[in-house]
Amino acid sequence: MQVKTDTAPTALTGIKPSGEPHVGNYLGTIRPALRLAETYHTIYFIADYHALTTVHEGAELREYTDVIAATWLAFGLDPERTLFYRQSDVPQIPELAWILSCFTPKGLLDRAHAYKDALARQQEISAGLYSYPVLMAADILAFRAQWVPVGRDQKQHVEICRDLAMNFNRAYGEILTVPEALIQAEVETIPGTDGRKMSKSYGNVLPLFGEAQALRKLIMRIPTDSTPVEAPKDPETALPFQLYRHFATPAERDELAARLRQGGAGWAAVKQALAEVLERELAEPRRRYQDWMSGERKRLHAALDAGGEKARTLANKLLTNVRRAVGVR
Amino acid sequence: MQVKTDTAPTALTGIKPSGEPHVGNYLGTIRPALRLAETYHTIYFIADYHALTTVHEGAELREYTDVIAATWLAFGLDPERTLFYRQSDVPQIPELAWILSCFTPKGLLDRAHAYKDALARQQEISAGLYSYPVLMAADILAFRAQWVPVGRDQKQHVEICRDLAMNFNRAYGEILTVPEALIQAEVETIPGTDGRKMSKSYGNVLPLFGEAQALRKLIMRIPTDSTPVEAPKDPETALPFQLYRHFATPAERDELAARLRQGGAGWAAVKQALAEVLERELAEPRRRYQDWMSGERKRLHAALDAGGEKARTLANKLLTNVRRAVGVR
Repeated sequence: MQVKTDTAPTALTGIKPSGEPHVGNYLGTIRPALRLAETYHTIYFIADYHALTTVHEGAELREYTDVIAATWLAFGLDPERTLFYRQSDVPQIPELAWILSCFTPKGLLDRAHAYKDALARQQEISAGLYSYPVLMAADILAFRAQWVPVGRDQKQHVEICRDLAMNFNRAYGEILTVPEALIQAEVETIPGTDGRKMSKSYGNVLPLFGEAQALRKLIMRIPTDSTPVEAPKDPETALPFQLYRHFATPAERDELAARLRQGGAGWAAVKQALAEVLERELAEPRRRYQDWMSGERKRLHAALDAGGEKARTLANKLLTNVRRAVGVR
Repeated sequence: MQVKTDTAPTALTGIKPSGEPHVGNYLGTIRPALRLAETYHTIYFIADYHALTTVHEGAELREYTDVIAATWLAFGLDPERTLFYRQSDVPQIPELAWILSCFTPKGLLDRAHAYKDALARQQEISAGLYSYPVLMAADILAFRAQWVPVGRDQKQHVEICRDLAMNFNRAYGEILTVPEALIQAEVETIPGTDGRKMSKSYGNVLPLFGEAQALRKLIMRIPTDSTPVEAPKDPETALPFQLYRHFATPAERDELAARLRQGGAGWAAVKQALAEVLERELAEPRRRYQDWMSGERKRLHAALDAGGEKARTLANKLLTNVRRAVGVR
């Protein structure tokens, strides 16, 4: 494992607030993103102005923001040691986005994947959705982030950000830090309680902060076949095991896999083991989540406000240089 | 004449900083816009973030901004009684532009005249040029302007602004003030010293703040035909008279027109009269312009800074409501 030093590079992660997170979100996004803090100076922000392209109900966006903030904090995001803020608390971001838009050939946006996907789906397209890569570039460049952890499908948006930064620097000198995409290993698909990909739209999710009792019930209802207890079973196709392995230690995982292959472990025992490792990992975050969400969420908002303050100070340093360069000051 | 009252409606005018203004700009834009202050609560702003779509040299944009600010102040814009600021001093404007972009069907921008003109000219198109109507809508809506004085060619951009405001209000209630276009009478084309439209690109301009002596020389060189002094002349086709009439009182104008028609007034006399009325109107503004541009422009920048402060306070009131409505606070 690399050890983080003072000169560790910066990695920036945007989190779109879009409702109650589930175990699939945790394994696919939250856990790997939080692990970056071990080796990078990390910046995490709640991309509420990106969410506004789709969420047009104020109370909903506000609630989603609190839920997602409390979730990340519950899983150990340390707001004292990392920068954590709401995008909308940093007016320098949309200001920089406008400036960058003057250095964005329209053709770049026409070729952006998110826009082309929306076109292909014959979705109604707003100017916000269309200019999304410019706001994303501002998110990154305002904080001089060096690394942007993204899945392979988001690599192009980081490349657009690089292009804009280089266009700007060509006109005004080396003011913007050109970032690089940190391609994250594809996280395998996390199965839901019916074996399909875990997704709210399938109604097959394990909610992250459900009560232990309720979670156990959902797990016990996971469909399994009628292989008898004593018969050997293939862990690779055993749905409860496929969830278990993400929460078990390597030793636990290998042991249960061996027991399944040998025969003697029944489905009820596997589900029981899954419920146990899940509870082991989620009990403490669940308690912390409830803490963050309690008391009119004052502590939660105070943490976000304090992060916003720090973020504005940092972004303003860059914007001061940018404004001076373009000649608006 | 209407008399301005406390309940007079608000009219907002954006001024694009694009170099040394000339007599054509004054007659076509500056003088009519300043006259609005007689009947409206006026807001004037220097649209430096719009200029950034074309001016990519910092020192140039900064100089253009000072020159245009000093020009309007020299012609009597009263920064105490009107709101006067640099667009870039109001970060609420690009922030509101992002929010509005989420309520802007992309098709609206595809049909915007400025974009279609640029397409037709096969000009390179930036995302900034393309989204220009969204920033313009934010300029207007951030200050709850009721009227937007525009030429007929800009009417469509005000209509786009109205559409965005109505889209937003449909989602969140009556938060934005839907403005109306105040169609300005077409100002007739102001001829330059060669008879073609006065334009820097033709090199035929009368600079607004040229020295009296230099201006007189330019005027004396205006080409005229060899009609003798005593012959009758048609004021409608007489170039020096066509400039004279914009600066003369109605009585002076009618008198000189009559003298030309009767014969007895030579071209030199008409040019002399033009130089006199021009000097009468420009002498005092020229002095004031030099004052505003002197002393490291400290007074100029102080006036703009003070205006920016007032503008931010005002725009923030609206943005507070907008942010609350969309749920980012």
